[in-house]
Amino acid sequence: MNVLIVYAHPEPTSLNGALKDFAMQRLAANGHTVQVSDLYAMGWKPQLDAGDTLEHEAGTPFHPSLDSKRAFAGGWQSPDIAAEQDKLRWADAVVFQFPLWWFSMPAIMKGWVERVYAYGFAYGVGEHSDARWGDRYGEGSMQGKRAMLVVTTGGWDSHYSARGINGPIDDLLFPIQHGVLYYPGFDVLPPFVSYRSSKMDDARFASIRQALGARLDALFDTAPIPYRPQNSGQYEIPALTLRDDIAPGRTGFAAHRE
Amino acid sequence: MNVLIVYAHPEPTSLNGALKDFAMQRLAANGHTVQVSDLYAMGWKPQLDAGDTLEHEAGTPFHPSLDSKRAFAGGWQSPDIAAEQDKLRWADAVVFQFPLWWFSMPAIMKGWVERVYAYGFAYGVGEHSDARWGDRYGEGSMQGKRAMLVVTTGGWDSHYSARGINGPIDDLLFPIQHGVLYYPGFDVLPPFVSYRSSKMDDARFASIRQALGARLDALFDTAPIPYRPQNSGQYEIPALTLRDDIAPGRTGFAAHRE
Repeated sequence: MNVLIVYAHPEPTSLNGALKDFAMQRLAANGHTVQVSDLYAMGWKPQLDAGDTLEHEAGTPFHPSLDSKRAFAGGWQSPDIAAEQDKLRWADAVVFQFPLWWFSMPAIMKGWVERVYAYGFAYGVGEHSDARWGDRYGEGSMQGKRAMLVVTTGGWDSHYSARGINGPIDDLLFPIQHGVLYYPGFDVLPPFVSYRSSKMDDARFASIRQALGARLDALFDTAPIPYRPQNSGQYEIPALTLRDDIAPGRTGFAAHRE
Repeated sequence: MNVLIVYAHPEPTSLNGALKDFAMQRLAANGHTVQVSDLYAMGWKPQLDAGDTLEHEAGTPFHPSLDSKRAFAGGWQSPDIAAEQDKLRWADAVVFQFPLWWFSMPAIMKGWVERVYAYGFAYGVGEHSDARWGDRYGEGSMQGKRAMLVVTTGGWDSHYSARGINGPIDDLLFPIQHGVLYYPGFDVLPPFVSYRSSKMDDARFASIRQALGARLDALFDTAPIPYRPQNSGQYEIPALTLRDDIAPGRTGFAAHRE
């Protein structure tokens, strides 16, 4: 199968760099074809702006989504964006690997999402009617592909537990896993999280590598997180609230898991 | 009082641009002194890297937090970072204004956080002991200052409600409000959120402006979100989980509000 690793860390000799190299080798050893988008090494441009649209006329107002729509439809996207979209089309699975900085992905990877996720490609897809609100949340261009986060944190496991001060890791990752990955149709696998990354000795590193290896071996067998598809009848349209008889009384992120 | 607006939108004639201009005028009319960090207009560098540390020796490994610590302590930070830190020191209140892109702040603003929030300035501050785990979550360099998010979304109010498909807006903003703002000590005010930004007519715009004006008029009077201070005795140290007798049985983001 084809696996894309989208990776963000500025230092190749870091823990993240070592885990990325390990993942590449393990996936290749399992017979997969691997491509890596090493965003720092590529000099990826993080900020979405008028320069992303080759035909944008200087001096006219730039509209992030409408310019994206025209550029995607007309073939006028910046070539770096089109190349990443081709990698996504090619991939059967995508691994997003990054250190958790300020409780989210690094800016350079957020900018990858903003620029590569064009209108007509990752959003603004499909019809809007009484029964459907676009192809999203379980449907869309990434349907049939798998995605998994590989994340390191400086904080401890307990700091990210159900009553930990940082908030539960699953909730911190919901805007990414549900909002960035499930939205355009990925099946989202449970994340692989390594805590306390600054206290790493050989034994811990070996144990993390082994656990990551097992997750990569099962990349195409692991059951995805059972988020609720938007157009499955479980949500009112267009309010997009859960129907009263679905998980009655439940609110918040957890309500969107079956 | 001194108010800093940190603002991210690529198009000055956008709704966000108009709201930013309005906020500047309203705050000035109320007698405050206003500075704006217009990140796109400044050409702000989003990605954190070895270039942020003027004394970093080429060819040696770059460590994001340790290099930040040395550069902050030694006065070797990139001047654009030091200038933003001076604005934060100067400010009595900071408004962060941005469109919600993929359920978080734009990459360029995330990169402002990552680069300006140096080790020794916004984290890695204070002693670690049996009773304290650094000056953070209610204590730290920003203690006594106020912060407020001003956010626009394309989606509808109901999509961001308690049972809305995107997740509740308060939970989506928790990684920013609690993780980025409360962490270094800001008092965090309830956010000002404008939904359905692409369906804007004169009447709606006037109503949004009026509501934002009222929030800005009350900037120094509004009660902050009552997050729990880390070193108040409500959390076990070093596990940083809520003590069993505090909000027993409650889990998730909401448990961290008093």
